[in-house]
Order: sequence, then structure tokens, then C-alpha cells
Amino acid sequence: MEPAGRVLSIAITTGEPAGVGPELTVAALAQAAERWPGVTFSVLADRDLMTERAGASAWLSGSALIEIEHHALSVPAKAGTLDAANGRYVLGLLDTAIDGAMSGRFDAIVTAPLQKSTINDAGVPFTGHTEYLAERTHTPRVVMMLAGSGERPLRVALATTHLPLKDVSAALTVDGIVDTLDIIHRDLKAMFGLPQPRILVTGLNPHAGENGYLGREEIDVITPALVRAREMGIDAPGPYPADTLFQPRYLKDADCVLAMFHDQGLPVLKYATFGEGINVTLGLPIIRTSVDHGTALDLAGTGRADAGSLIAAIDTAVAMARHRRAA
Amino acid sequence: MEPAGRVLSIAITTGEPAGVGPELTVAALAQAAERWPGVTFSVLADRDLMTERAGASAWLSGSALIEIEHHALSVPAKAGTLDAANGRYVLGLLDTAIDGAMSGRFDAIVTAPLQKSTINDAGVPFTGHTEYLAERTHTPRVVMMLAGSGERPLRVALATTHLPLKDVSAALTVDGIVDTLDIIHRDLKAMFGLPQPRILVTGLNPHAGENGYLGREEIDVITPALVRAREMGIDAPGPYPADTLFQPRYLKDADCVLAMFHDQGLPVLKYATFGEGINVTLGLPIIRTSVDHGTALDLAGTGRADAGSLIAAIDTAVAMARHRRAA
Repeated sequence: MEPAGRVLSIAITTGEPAGVGPELTVAALAQAAERWPGVTFSVLADRDLMTERAGASAWLSGSALIEIEHHALSVPAKAGTLDAANGRYVLGLLDTAIDGAMSGRFDAIVTAPLQKSTINDAGVPFTGHTEYLAERTHTPRVVMMLAGSGERPLRVALATTHLPLKDVSAALTVDGIVDTLDIIHRDLKAMFGLPQPRILVTGLNPHAGENGYLGREEIDVITPALVRAREMGIDAPGPYPADTLFQPRYLKDADCVLAMFHDQGLPVLKYATFGEGINVTLGLPIIRTSVDHGTALDLAGTGRADAGSLIAAIDTAVAMARHRRAA
Repeated sequence: MEPAGRVLSIAITTGEPAGVGPELTVAALAQAAERWPGVTFSVLADRDLMTERAGASAWLSGSALIEIEHHALSVPAKAGTLDAANGRYVLGLLDTAIDGAMSGRFDAIVTAPLQKSTINDAGVPFTGHTEYLAERTHTPRVVMMLAGSGERPLRVALATTHLPLKDVSAALTVDGIVDTLDIIHRDLKAMFGLPQPRILVTGLNPHAGENGYLGREEIDVITPALVRAREMGIDAPGPYPADTLFQPRYLKDADCVLAMFHDQGLPVLKYATFGEGINVTLGLPIIRTSVDHGTALDLAGTGRADAGSLIAAIDTAVAMARHRRAA
């Protein structure tokens, strides 16, 4: 089934054990044989937890392509109730996935949601999956990109991520934007099958600064960065007013939007994808996709959480791994 | 047709004569008899310009409820070519509409797009329709709200409007947010037929500041404003992360979203309304709606510009005037 002879191997970190990650993994992989034929899945989790959340011990029977790699919980996990005693368990799943992807054992990793506070309360400073992945793989710059699904999905990458709004302007630099565009350009080519990706770039200010009347970052920072990116062969027109660019008639010619900050780009993405968006970390030496939602503690254990985002994240990881292998 | 016996009278300012305003007015009012029965329209424009852009002098024939209030252009207007000599003409249309609405001659005014530079180049400082309306009607605070159409449209109001992004944080005050919510609350009640409007409020920072880790404005400014607004009987929950709030499942319970700044709220609105959004100025003593697009100089004179937004703006002005009259 796979061109290179070897099946693809995907690791799934099931994340916070009190959250919906374990049951979403079960729900998503129920479709594995039909949706992802020829792909093997390593589910990183406590085996008893998975059995409990699956509602039956039989969920793996007959699924030779799905295996649980057992990591023992420190204490039993109660759905909906966080316990810092399991912080290192959550981190252990992630470390195993990263190490396995770095060594080539996994072709991609897909991460279910974790709770930052569980890890921090266990005494390990942790600001988020994306930052942790960058650090563990010694990657100086990564890019957060969220995406919908379908033939030509909406994709939104961010020039800055989790910063107070008032610090965004100072965080934008010509080098930073050029590097970000370069990462998006290279990864969309190598792992999304787009030979010449078109990246539309927003301004920072309302109306993209209206020729300097509403701010000068477009003139002083963004436009010089785009000039340099174009010299590098990157198709990155802009800067455009965000409320012009995010109209379907402009988006239809784009493979990705680079927004300058979190709340300029993600509200549209979340609106458009109805909770089925996914998160991809670009610029890493490994492939990593994720759901775009949190641990949903209130839904944990009920079986009512929607696996759509996790399924879409697996879809994307599989497609990226195939593109990379074919390249 | 009208409950109070007198027909409604709507003024339309046709705006920049080199832009699409005149022809969009013709296109929109072609539907007047069927779409807005019992409403009279005063089209503020140069008569010859309208005849030229209408493609025939007969467009008004048989339309007793539409009249052109003639204002002479200073120089003939060429579609697509701005001429500052007509800057005072454009402003004259607006002054006539405002004066007529203040005196009760018009029940509402609907404004086609103008070009700020035409007016500024004519020697009159002009930052925008909204600011001019506030000044001319001696209104200390107005609120810009954009909206879609339909049974329960998406509506997005802004706590700050045309400011450089880096100045947004300092512009947010408890009093300002309370006043803004009060205006939205009162106008949605009085002119949108919503007895208890529900206004969802965003945070300023990513994830609404994540308990202060990503910024303190939610704690120091927005939350205290919401507490005070609720004491005044305003239904204004929040602050919510913008990318959570702008998902259809949360929006379905809202009459309006109050976003903290331009590019947090308007990209979603423009995406969702496909260019058929409208702009309403809340807080004025008069009713004013507008298209949400510009003068589209490249389309002027071609007849290819889409009148959807102007038609929606007239729809809303008529509905607002009826609600106010019925109140």
C-alpha cells in the first residue's frame, strides 16, 4: 500500500488522562482500518486507562495495526479531575513520541490535548506543546499553523503566537517574518504537495496601516520582509488588510495566510472549521499535528466529545508523512 | 402600510462620484417598489451623474417614491478618476442628509462609500463617516457595528476602531467599555427589536489573557467593566477568548459580539458575510447605516459592482426606523 514498501507508523500521545484525549483516540482509531489502510498506530497511554475509557477491553481486538505502548499512570486517573501526580506521565508520553520520531521509529506524531497546569504543578516548567517540541528537537524557530480540511483548506500561520497584545508590535522583525515565511514555504512544498505555495500576508494594523496613518509596521517591517522573501523565491503577496484578505474571494487563490498575531488569524479559522480544525507545527525535523481544542474536562468520560479534530489531525499527519516519503 | 400613518423617508448619500456609489444606488432602488413598499427615498446626488451612471434617463420613471435631490457637482465626474474639486460636493450630500435626519425630514440615512482623500485634498480634514457623524450631531461616543443579514445575523461591534495596534491596550478603559456596552444595549433594544440583547465580549489578549499569563487587561479593565455593565442590567458575558467565541456554537446564543479591536472582530464578520455585510453607527441621535466596502474605483462605471451590501444597508435602515417608530 505504501510506495516505499514499509508501512507508515504514527504515534498518538493520548495526553491528559483526566481529559478527553484517551476516549477520542479510541473513537478516531475505530475508523483506522477503512480510513488509514496500511498505517500502523502506536497509542502511547496507560493500558488500563484505555480499557476503562473505551468502555470495553475489546476495542483493539482484530486491529493488528493498532498497539498500545504502555506507560503506567502514577495514580489512577479520574475523568474530569486533574491530578499533578500524573504530570510526568503526560510528559513521558510526549518524550517517547518525540524520541521515536527523531530516531525514525515513527513517521509522525499526533498529539491529543494536555493540561499545561498538570505538568507545571508537577514541578516541570511547561508553556505548551509547540514550545516543548522546539526545545526538545533543538529547533530555533517553529511556526504554528492551523488548518481546516477538504480539497483546498483554509490554513492560517502566525508570525507571533502567545504574547500579550501590547507586545506584538515589538516582537515583529524583518528577520523573524522572513524566517517564518521560509519555513512555511519549505514545509508546504515538502509535506503538503504544493510545488509553489502562495502565502497571503496580513498587515499588523487596521487597513494594513492605511499608508502609515494607522501605524508604521507595514512600512518599516512587513513590506521589507516581503521584498526579501520574494527575492528568495517565496510567493508572499501583501501586506493586506486582514478584513479584506479573509474573504472567500481572496482566500480561494491562497494556500496559506500568514497573520501577524493570534487573534487576527485564529477567530476566522475557528469560525470556518467548526471545531474540526487542526494544528500543525512547521519547521520541526519531525512531523507533528494536533487537535485544535483543549482537554474538555467537562466531557471527559462521557463519550460525547467529538473526535472530528483528532481524525483530521491524523489525516493530515498521514498525508504529510506520505508527501515527505515521496519527495 | 406604515403603522404611524406617515411613510418612512430614507435619504441615500451617493458618495464619491468617481466611485460605484451612484450606480449601486440605481441598482438597489430598482427593487424599491417590491422590497420596500411604502418607503420613500431621497437620493442625494447630481442629477446628470445619476442619469449617466444609470445608463438611461428613464430609471426613475414611474417611481413616484424615489426622488433625486439635486446637488450640483463642481466639475463633471469621470468614473474611476478622483478629483478633489468634488470634495465639497461629497460633504454637501452628507451634510444635507444629517441635517434632514436631525430635523425629522428623514427617518434614516444610508451612505454609499466616499473617498476620504477627495475630501481631505479639498482642504477639509476628514477621518471618516463615523467620526464626522459623531461630530456633526454632537455625540461624544458612537459605536461602530458591522452585521450580516438574515434571521439572526452575526453582529460585531468594536471597543476601539481605527488605531495603530500598539495603541489599543492603552485606549481601553473601564468607562469606555461600559459606555460602549450601554450604547449597544440601548440601540439593539430600541432599533433592532431585541428586548434583552445578549452581547458576548472578547478579551484583548490571546486566550483572553489566560488568567494574567498573557496580559492583564482582562483582569484590570475588561472584567471590571463587565461587572459594572451587568449591574446596569446589561447581558454581557465574557471576556472570552476570541477564537473560542467566534465559533458558530457560541454565536448562536448571541445578538452581538463586542470585540476589543478592529482586526479581532472584522475578519470573521467579512468572512461570514461574503461582502454583504453592513455598517451601523450606534449611539447617534439619528439612524445611519452604510455599506461595508469602499468606492471600488476599478469597477466604477462598469455596472459590475454588486449592490448586495447597499441593499442590506437599506433593509437594516428601514427595519431600524420601523422599530424606533413602533417603540
